[in-house]
Amino acid sequence: MKIGVIGGGQLGRMLALAGTPLGQQFAFLDPAPDACAQALGEHIRADYSDRDHLRQLADEADVVTFEFESVPAETVAFLSQFVPVFPNAESLRIARDRWFEKSMFQDLGIPTPEFADIQSQDNLDAAVKRIGLPAVMKTRTLGYDGKGQKVLRHAEDVQGAFAELGNVPCILEGFVPFTGEVSLIAVRGRDGETAFYPLVHNTHEQGILRLSIASTDHSLQGLAEDYASRVLKQLDYVGVLAFEFFEIDGGLKANEIAPRVHNSGHWTIEGAECSQFENHLRAIAGLPLGSTAKLGESAMLNFIGEVPAVDKVTAISDCHLHHYGKAFKSGRKVGHATLRCADAATLKARISDVQRLIQP
Amino acid sequence: MKIGVIGGGQLGRMLALAGTPLGQQFAFLDPAPDACAQALGEHIRADYSDRDHLRQLADEADVVTFEFESVPAETVAFLSQFVPVFPNAESLRIARDRWFEKSMFQDLGIPTPEFADIQSQDNLDAAVKRIGLPAVMKTRTLGYDGKGQKVLRHAEDVQGAFAELGNVPCILEGFVPFTGEVSLIAVRGRDGETAFYPLVHNTHEQGILRLSIASTDHSLQGLAEDYASRVLKQLDYVGVLAFEFFEIDGGLKANEIAPRVHNSGHWTIEGAECSQFENHLRAIAGLPLGSTAKLGESAMLNFIGEVPAVDKVTAISDCHLHHYGKAFKSGRKVGHATLRCADAATLKARISDVQRLIQP
Repeated sequence: MKIGVIGGGQLGRMLALAGTPLGQQFAFLDPAPDACAQALGEHIRADYSDRDHLRQLADEADVVTFEFESVPAETVAFLSQFVPVFPNAESLRIARDRWFEKSMFQDLGIPTPEFADIQSQDNLDAAVKRIGLPAVMKTRTLGYDGKGQKVLRHAEDVQGAFAELGNVPCILEGFVPFTGEVSLIAVRGRDGETAFYPLVHNTHEQGILRLSIASTDHSLQGLAEDYASRVLKQLDYVGVLAFEFFEIDGGLKANEIAPRVHNSGHWTIEGAECSQFENHLRAIAGLPLGSTAKLGESAMLNFIGEVPAVDKVTAISDCHLHHYGKAFKSGRKVGHATLRCADAATLKARISDVQRLIQP
Repeated sequence: MKIGVIGGGQLGRMLALAGTPLGQQFAFLDPAPDACAQALGEHIRADYSDRDHLRQLADEADVVTFEFESVPAETVAFLSQFVPVFPNAESLRIARDRWFEKSMFQDLGIPTPEFADIQSQDNLDAAVKRIGLPAVMKTRTLGYDGKGQKVLRHAEDVQGAFAELGNVPCILEGFVPFTGEVSLIAVRGRDGETAFYPLVHNTHEQGILRLSIASTDHSLQGLAEDYASRVLKQLDYVGVLAFEFFEIDGGLKANEIAPRVHNSGHWTIEGAECSQFENHLRAIAGLPLGSTAKLGESAMLNFIGEVPAVDKVTAISDCHLHHYGKAFKSGRKVGHATLRCADAATLKARISDVQRLIQP
C-alpha cells in the first residue's frame, strides 16, 4: 500500500519510519527542496496547489493524509475526487480555523475559554469589553508554535492589535488561569474503533512545546476521552487527532485540536506499545488499531534550533534520539529525545540529564 | 554521518530504520534492481567487485559496513584503503570460512563439535573414520540457511559426497546430540566497550530459523559472554557479532559466528532497550553503546515465502510486524513478527496466535 502525504517534514518522516515495517511505501508532496522526509520515500517537489502534481500523488497513492492542518481546503477537495483522504475535508476545515473549532466545542458541550470572532478593530474593542483582560488574540488560521498571536494585558495592548496581526480574521480568547496543559492523543479507525493514549502533561516556552510527560492514571483521563469522543464522532474522523486542554479547577477547558500526529505524542514511539505514527497509518489504511498502553514512565524533550552532540545524547541511559535531518535554525524543531524509564524518579533524573545538554 | 552498506536486503533496511533517527544517511551497494533497502537510502546498483562503484561508495560514506559475510575479501581490502570498514577484514576472513572459524574457536579454548578440513573425497573418507557418523558436511564458504550442507548418516551417504557439494573445500563436523540451539548477540564499540543481549533460544526447520525466544536469566549467559568476549578481542571486532551455540550437557559448543546483525536478534527492535541494529550503528560510528536490557518477554517469528495478511498480523496483541517489502518466493525470508509481552504465559499464547497465520 502506498501512502501519499501532503508535507514532507519530520511528521512525514516519522510516519514513514513507522509505516515501512508494515510494508507501506510513501510519497511526500512538499515544495521544499530539502524536505526531510525524502530520505524515506518519493519526493514530489511541488506547491500544495499544483494540480498536476496533486493528480500524480492521487494516482500513485492508495490513501492520502497530511502532516499539517493549513493545507488549502481546495487541495483536499481536489484530491478527494481521486483517492481517499484521511482525516476528511470537514475535519481539516474545522481544525484549521480557531473560530470553527471553538464553535464546535461549544456545540458539543465541551467547555472552552470564552471566545469571540474578530473581523475588525471594532469587533476587538467590543469583545475585550465583554471578555475582559488579560486575553489572547490569535489569527483564526495559520498560527502555530506561538506565531500569529498576541497576549493583551492592558488597554494599550488592544489599540491597533487587529492591524498588528495583519488585518486578518482573528479570535479573542479569555485568559484561563490554568494549572497545567495536557493533551490527549486519540485515534479512530475507518470502522469507528477508537483508542486513546494516556494524557500528556505539556510545558511550553515562548509558545513552543519543550517537554511532554506521559501521565499514569490521570484523574481527568475519562473526561478527556469523553470530550475527544464527541469530536471524533462529530467529524466522522479517521486517523490520529491531538486534543489540547487547559487543566483548571480539577476540570478541563478545550484549547485546540490538531487533525494529525502531534508533537506531544512523539513519546509514543518508544513509550507506548504502538506509536501514534503507526496507529495513524493503521487507521487510514483500514487496519486494526494497535495498543495505546504505556511502557514504563515516559517523556519527550524537543530539540529547538539544534540537536546536541549525538554522542552526548546517546550516552544518556533510557534515552532515544530522534534527529530530523533538518538544517539547524533558531526556533526550529530539529529533533527530540524520548525517555522511557522504569519509574518516575528515574525519569525525573533523566529529564535533567537531557535538559543539561540543551542550550538555554 | 553517512553509512555505506554492502548489500541492500532486509538487514540493510532495518539498519537504516534504526539509524535514520540518529541523523545518519545510508547508501547501499547491491546489484539487485529490487534491493529492498533502497526505500531508505541511495541505491548504488553495482556488482560487489565493481571498483568504480565501490570507490563511489567509499567517497560518499564516512564508514562502511556489510549485511552479509560472503562479501569478497578483495572488496573489503579495496574499500579499506579509502574509508573505515567495520567489522574489519580479518573478522570477515575468519567468519566466512568454517575452517578458519572453527580453528579460531579451538585456538581460543572454546569447545566446538569435532571437525576436519575436507579438500577431497579421500580427506572425507579419512575424516569419517576419525569422527564417525552421523556427521554434517558443509562447504567452507557461502553456505547459509541450510544451503551448502549435507547430513551423512550412513556409509552410502559418504560415497561421492565431496562431488555432490561441488568439489569445493568443505568441513566435516561431528554430530552433536544437542538439547537446544542458542545464540548470543554481542556488540563491541570502537573503544573496546562490549555489551551482550540475553541468550536467545532458536528453532530451525529445514535449516531456516523459524522462532527465536529471548531468555531470562539463562544459566549459560555468563559462559556464552566469556566465549564471545574471547572472539571479539581476538578479532579486534567492531559492530554486532552473532554467536550460535549448541546447548549440550549443561554446556555450550560453538557452532558459528556471523559478523553482522543477525536474524536471531530481530526481536531486539521492540524487545530490548536499544536494538541490535542501532547498537551496530552506534558501534561503527564511534558512539556509546545502548542498553541491551530486555523489555518484558520477547520472541520473533520469521515469515518465510510470504507475509500473512497485514490486517491479521496487526490484529494480534503485542505483535509488531516487520514486512521487508520483498517479492514473495518460496523459502525466502520476507518478514518477521516481534512479540513483546508482560509475561511468559502470554508470550506462549501469542506465539501460537502468530503460528496459526503461518501456512505450514
